[in-house]
Amino acid sequence: MASTEPLISIRESKEKLEIVNQLLLPHAIEYLEIDGIEAAHDAIKTMKIRGAPAIASLAALAFVRFLHKTLGADDAGYLASVSTLQSKCEEILGYLYTSRPTAVNLGTAIRRLKAVLHSGTNDPRLLAEQLIAEATAIHAEDLQRNKDMAKWAGQWLLNHHKVPQDGKVNVLTVCNTGSLATSGYGTALGTITYLHETERLDKAYYTQTAPYHQGSRLTAFELQTLQIPSVMICDTMVGSLFQTHTIHAVAVGADRIAKNGDTANKIGTYNAAVLAARHKIPFIVVAPISTVDLDIQNGSQIPIEYRPPIEACLVRGVPYPPSSDDKPESTIQVMITPKNLSGIYNPSFDVTPAELITAIATEKGVAIRAEGREVFDLASIV
Amino acid sequence: MASTEPLISIRESKEKLEIVNQLLLPHAIEYLEIDGIEAAHDAIKTMKIRGAPAIASLAALAFVRFLHKTLGADDAGYLASVSTLQSKCEEILGYLYTSRPTAVNLGTAIRRLKAVLHSGTNDPRLLAEQLIAEATAIHAEDLQRNKDMAKWAGQWLLNHHKVPQDGKVNVLTVCNTGSLATSGYGTALGTITYLHETERLDKAYYTQTAPYHQGSRLTAFELQTLQIPSVMICDTMVGSLFQTHTIHAVAVGADRIAKNGDTANKIGTYNAAVLAARHKIPFIVVAPISTVDLDIQNGSQIPIEYRPPIEACLVRGVPYPPSSDDKPESTIQVMITPKNLSGIYNPSFDVTPAELITAIATEKGVAIRAEGREVFDLASIV
Repeated sequence: MASTEPLISIRESKEKLEIVNQLLLPHAIEYLEIDGIEAAHDAIKTMKIRGAPAIASLAALAFVRFLHKTLGADDAGYLASVSTLQSKCEEILGYLYTSRPTAVNLGTAIRRLKAVLHSGTNDPRLLAEQLIAEATAIHAEDLQRNKDMAKWAGQWLLNHHKVPQDGKVNVLTVCNTGSLATSGYGTALGTITYLHETERLDKAYYTQTAPYHQGSRLTAFELQTLQIPSVMICDTMVGSLFQTHTIHAVAVGADRIAKNGDTANKIGTYNAAVLAARHKIPFIVVAPISTVDLDIQNGSQIPIEYRPPIEACLVRGVPYPPSSDDKPESTIQVMITPKNLSGIYNPSFDVTPAELITAIATEKGVAIRAEGREVFDLASIV
Repeated sequence: MASTEPLISIRESKEKLEIVNQLLLPHAIEYLEIDGIEAAHDAIKTMKIRGAPAIASLAALAFVRFLHKTLGADDAGYLASVSTLQSKCEEILGYLYTSRPTAVNLGTAIRRLKAVLHSGTNDPRLLAEQLIAEATAIHAEDLQRNKDMAKWAGQWLLNHHKVPQDGKVNVLTVCNTGSLATSGYGTALGTITYLHETERLDKAYYTQTAPYHQGSRLTAFELQTLQIPSVMICDTMVGSLFQTHTIHAVAVGADRIAKNGDTANKIGTYNAAVLAARHKIPFIVVAPISTVDLDIQNGSQIPIEYRPPIEACLVRGVPYPPSSDDKPESTIQVMITPKNLSGIYNPSFDVTPAELITAIATEKGVAIRAEGREVFDLASIV
């Protein structure tokens, strides 16, 4: 498995749009065809694809395919008039938006598409072409943005610690923010990749990230593929790690950042931030500008998604020990709790207050809080 | 499953000594016979029985059976002389001690037995009888001690919060410190049971406690059996819970407490303590006096057990969805990481510094830190 090309979350050809089913990783690599808007919505909702930028990309690309199909149809259909096309597109974009409410990138992508939709174009075919261009750009822009923000974050970190020219740093991350979560390279995990590529990384540490184990499944897999020296810890071990190891920074992604810097990210991020603060370890959020939502003043206004309770009772993996033949095993789910357990708390995200965040790195640079301030002024950088 | 008698970890009859295999709970109830010292050592080492007091009890009871067998033997054997008996007992006690190094109760039990062993008795049969009496007492004393400490802790908590006479509290616990971890009732979970029995508990909250999931397997099972209203959270959700719910206290057990109050307990305890401190939630350790080790000045001297790395990659449960027939499923293990993952950190315990602990409840009462002090003076209460 080592040294192969990193997996990408979305694969496109003229014939079809596919995603890697992330629920089965790292045990099985299964491509799922996304053959329409409903399939895209379902893949996002059931977490077969996850990661805020990747979700936005998939929604945009599924929309592109709908538009191509519409343009290629024999009858006029939704192209009968601009208002017919607008009405159908509004319906689709509204539906896609409901697939996951916390991640802002999807909302931003949809707002960009709606802006084009209502830009005054009076030819339905031209409007469809303009929408295709915009949606394609949403996907394409992500990779370069990731490389930019990873570099900003990595350089800031080395500078912040005044690490000697040949010195290497240890960085903890949570969840999965790599190639699989984005259109490539990654955000927080991109920062780790950047440090590794520039020979400034000692080790990457990552949490398992229950209940979906994006860390032990996806981040473990990506780091293994990239041959980056790394250490997995359970979610219970963050404090212990800080007590017993020198960790130079915690780098995390973001699903939505409020105007003041309060950041919603995968559940467990706030635990890590509080522990990092106690151990005086810089805590850096790495996310595209599109993650910042200036309409939201602070974290209390960020809607938090709750997942079905049963999902916190289930774990997916491959049987162990493996069977004697060397065939790849199918993944199965096991229930780790008593049957019929009532009373389960299962939020998918938490909010880390700005005061615990040392820096926010975007593709445009690194924002820090003004001296003595507990919040960021993100209006000035967006 | 609801409303049955709580399971006990150790079952004894004239014929045999048995334990519940806790690795299979809550999915299957399997009693394992402990037919000798080696079987006891193995059961402890492989975590088929866990919980610091339960481990000490099992070691003591296995030792009792060895002594009964020796007394019943046809030839003199180890009873040939006091020094023969002493030498064999030293060997056995030394071996049992190596089964799990962090829990102090086992060490305390062994010290008590060694004190009897070298008390000057000059008849080997009488010495064997004295050892039996002491080892039996080690097991028997635990239940009453638990009830006492749970009551002290519960009353302190209600008083600390000045809860109105009819007011109810919410308490978070980690790991499993109930009947299964002790000789009955439990320590921190005993406190929750006490509050429930006296109608002062609103809800118990508990973490899953990766990687062994003692919370989602054992605590969930015990609370379900006792019909105590409760809510499970993942280890990633402690901070989020504190942000969104009113939690009146965190109650945890202890595997070893240093003279200054620094406490070694199940991995993840320190995470919860740091988060509780941020949210100004009292953090209470509930443990027998025997857990306090006055020879250890502070937490840095407590030896921490590291478990085999593979254990952090495996999760045990029953297949889900269950098969269509209603037979109980066998438990299986699944691997949740890529194969051949290198780099895994897997400590079994962490150390919570005294400054984060609001109170330590033992069977003798509740110790608090003196005004303005960061440490406890436990020498005065032991």
